[in-house]
Amino acid sequence: MTQYADFNEQEINQAIDKSREAFLIYRKYSLKQRADFMRAIAEEMEGIREEAIALAMKEAHLPYPRIETEFNRTIFQLTSYAAAAEDGWWMDIRIDTADKEATPPKTDIRKTMVPLGPVAVFGASNFPFAYSTAGGDTACAFAAGCPVIVKAHPAHPETSDCVAGAILRAARRTGMPEGIFTHIHGAGVETGKTIVMHPQVKAVGFTGSYAGGKALYDFANQRPEPIPVFSEMGSINPVYLFPEKLKTAAEETARQYAASITLSVGQFCTNPGLILGVKSESLDQFIKKLGAEIRETAPAPMLHPGIAKAFASNRARALMQKGVTTESVSAEASGENEGIPTIASVEGSAFLNNPVLHQEVFGPYSLVVKCSSMAEMQQIADSIEGQLTSTLIATDGDIRQYEYLVDSIKSKCGRVIVNGVPTGVQVCVSMHHGGPFPATTDSRFTSVGADGIRRFARPLSYQGWPDHLLPPELANSNPLRIWRTVNNELTRAAIPS
Amino acid sequence: MTQYADFNEQEINQAIDKSREAFLIYRKYSLKQRADFMRAIAEEMEGIREEAIALAMKEAHLPYPRIETEFNRTIFQLTSYAAAAEDGWWMDIRIDTADKEATPPKTDIRKTMVPLGPVAVFGASNFPFAYSTAGGDTACAFAAGCPVIVKAHPAHPETSDCVAGAILRAARRTGMPEGIFTHIHGAGVETGKTIVMHPQVKAVGFTGSYAGGKALYDFANQRPEPIPVFSEMGSINPVYLFPEKLKTAAEETARQYAASITLSVGQFCTNPGLILGVKSESLDQFIKKLGAEIRETAPAPMLHPGIAKAFASNRARALMQKGVTTESVSAEASGENEGIPTIASVEGSAFLNNPVLHQEVFGPYSLVVKCSSMAEMQQIADSIEGQLTSTLIATDGDIRQYEYLVDSIKSKCGRVIVNGVPTGVQVCVSMHHGGPFPATTDSRFTSVGADGIRRFARPLSYQGWPDHLLPPELANSNPLRIWRTVNNELTRAAIPS
Repeated sequence: MTQYADFNEQEINQAIDKSREAFLIYRKYSLKQRADFMRAIAEEMEGIREEAIALAMKEAHLPYPRIETEFNRTIFQLTSYAAAAEDGWWMDIRIDTADKEATPPKTDIRKTMVPLGPVAVFGASNFPFAYSTAGGDTACAFAAGCPVIVKAHPAHPETSDCVAGAILRAARRTGMPEGIFTHIHGAGVETGKTIVMHPQVKAVGFTGSYAGGKALYDFANQRPEPIPVFSEMGSINPVYLFPEKLKTAAEETARQYAASITLSVGQFCTNPGLILGVKSESLDQFIKKLGAEIRETAPAPMLHPGIAKAFASNRARALMQKGVTTESVSAEASGENEGIPTIASVEGSAFLNNPVLHQEVFGPYSLVVKCSSMAEMQQIADSIEGQLTSTLIATDGDIRQYEYLVDSIKSKCGRVIVNGVPTGVQVCVSMHHGGPFPATTDSRFTSVGADGIRRFARPLSYQGWPDHLLPPELANSNPLRIWRTVNNELTRAAIPS
Repeated sequence: MTQYADFNEQEINQAIDKSREAFLIYRKYSLKQRADFMRAIAEEMEGIREEAIALAMKEAHLPYPRIETEFNRTIFQLTSYAAAAEDGWWMDIRIDTADKEATPPKTDIRKTMVPLGPVAVFGASNFPFAYSTAGGDTACAFAAGCPVIVKAHPAHPETSDCVAGAILRAARRTGMPEGIFTHIHGAGVETGKTIVMHPQVKAVGFTGSYAGGKALYDFANQRPEPIPVFSEMGSINPVYLFPEKLKTAAEETARQYAASITLSVGQFCTNPGLILGVKSESLDQFIKKLGAEIRETAPAPMLHPGIAKAFASNRARALMQKGVTTESVSAEASGENEGIPTIASVEGSAFLNNPVLHQEVFGPYSLVVKCSSMAEMQQIADSIEGQLTSTLIATDGDIRQYEYLVDSIKSKCGRVIVNGVPTGVQVCVSMHHGGPFPATTDSRFTSVGADGIRRFARPLSYQGWPDHLLPPELANSNPLRIWRTVNNELTRAAIPS
């Protein structure tokens, strides 16, 4: 593996100062210029496709189809967020025109969005493309009008370097200011801290562990000027098996979940790590089938040795907790750095009293909680922490009958799925990839979908400005043909001058 | 003055537990039910109009017309935010329908907004109605679907009690759950801390001083589960006098600003506390005229003795700073607890080097900074902290010529005004009342206008739900007739089933 020297503090500070200089220029670029830049990145990515995929396979130990899908998704993010940036709906334009006859007289006020400033992005180890160098956070920041400083993930520095090259070529080709994109290497916590504490960094995007995400959040709040941190810190994504549905769908659900739990060696932040059902024949049948499927699923290499080691120790710790039974383990022995598919079970009361069992075991592992009753399931749902997703395996009748439980489940997650699996996050505007703490540090924003652009912008109202000095999105003629709320009516029409 | 005993910790905890119980019920109420409740509060407010205004006059020492305007504004907030809540646009509904033919197949995903939970509101001393008990934060929280816990401001506890009575009557009349509104008395920091640290409080709205707002923000971030805090902490609202405009409008601007600086004894968070101009005959003329107007403005009682005392000491501290000249003071002697209109001046270099002069002097005071050049004005604009508002007194030519300066000014505020005054905050959706830290703790949200509802809600995506189990705003038939983004197109049409 190529060795990259950590940037020192002076190098980091100089790089961020340049990023700030770039911001002063880039913030004035039109939405079209931003979109063109993003589309150019997508094009340059096509040019490095095979090289970058080969590097990611080497560094992240993921098979070609999985990496290829992710690579394509990354390009889709860039182009679809570029289109959204240009459409301008994300700016929520609001215009109230002057009314001298009103009491008191109304002045002309028009609200748009302006970029926050340089954004620091900390990529994910499990998504070397889609949540790393040119991933979702970077695309959203560029769309919002912000330069980006990427801290390369130490697990895939070569892949990151390769993608950074594509971004820089796209920047040159489309006339972006120097400093629009900065790529920093550094394995230690200090590198991250130096970046987040720099006064010219104005927002942070992070995808990874709770420890990492919370540390950055705390650093940011200790700054003289606190800044927003969007840490997506994963979750255990509980799955609730409701009784009526389970009776008829135990085996089918077990098959579906065996696949979801072991998809990409369980290395998705939406991996279902917790399954809750009431003790019954159907639940036994579900566990039996799930166990059979898991036994037949082969171990596979994890992203990097650090993750494999963490999985092994977190799995071991979970399995040794009081009352935990190992239900099923892959029949095949696991090789070095491989994750071994595993299902465990525990009684509801033991789960309720043991916070260790509420923690994520990142990898192909899931814990089935055998509740003594629906009342106990309710108690668990009420006590569970914030999640990215929750899933109901339920009939309409189940959902109607257990209304309070369903409400409780909804209140703990950012996405609630019926009769599906949480893995496989669609990139579209209706997707909310976020959730109450500790799933993320800010439940009000998404890191998937073009609404994520809003993380890196803030509203600014113009009062009493002459029309010809307003930014185009606020001008009377509506040259960008954006949907705008004018005097409380949504319209794309121009305002009579 | 009626004495109110501070609530003790147990009483506070019990009250918040009740608020949580109310949340479990209120979150399921329809948008119309929320709006009806808010309209009922407005009606009940009409019933206490004269009593409440008399109490506020007694407790806040403001004259009838000023209080009456604020009272009317409070009612307008309640009814206009109720209308907005019902219209539903603030939920940013996004729907992507299933497409089984797509590769990979798309599932049905629909995104709405759900309330965060009980919201704690800390009212402002300078707005006993509009930013207190039934003020903007409370209205936004009710609209979002959250119960409210108000900590009564110790400067106007009787007014607060009177308004709380109106809210509770409205709650009973419209069938709201017990605990939907909680009114807590307490003068000390401990009361506020106990409220903010309670695990069932999920967001905080605050209007007041930097010290108070930042303390609540820090408490909230130290919780095991951090929560959003929307502190509006005021600012000095710089006014930039551009050279071409100043040449022709020095006297007119001075008159306008003398009125703005002393409006309501300078007790608005948008009060212009800093005026910057380049040394010139026009600037001398401006200062002379401003001084003459100020000399003729009588001192008047401030909100309460604490504020009057703080004004006196902050004013004295500012005036004794090196290089500061007292330009003008009201010709009339001030009585007890009265604020005396004052204008001071200082050279740009002295201002740049003295952070004390960057601090707000809450009251009828403004500092004119005499810059040696536009370059120095630029330097000051670059160094200034986040503001609620900035104002340009400028011709079109000025704005074109000093583009970099104008950009810098915009980057430091939430509202940028041309040739007007920052006081007089219009309640409308185009208004952004917020701004970069330290003006507020979250520059992305407004505390004026119906967009403020979004502070107290978060997105939730429904995936794969049967139509008849979706909340009405997501249902195919669009029963609420809301604007929704369906498959990337904004529409009010129903979705074919």
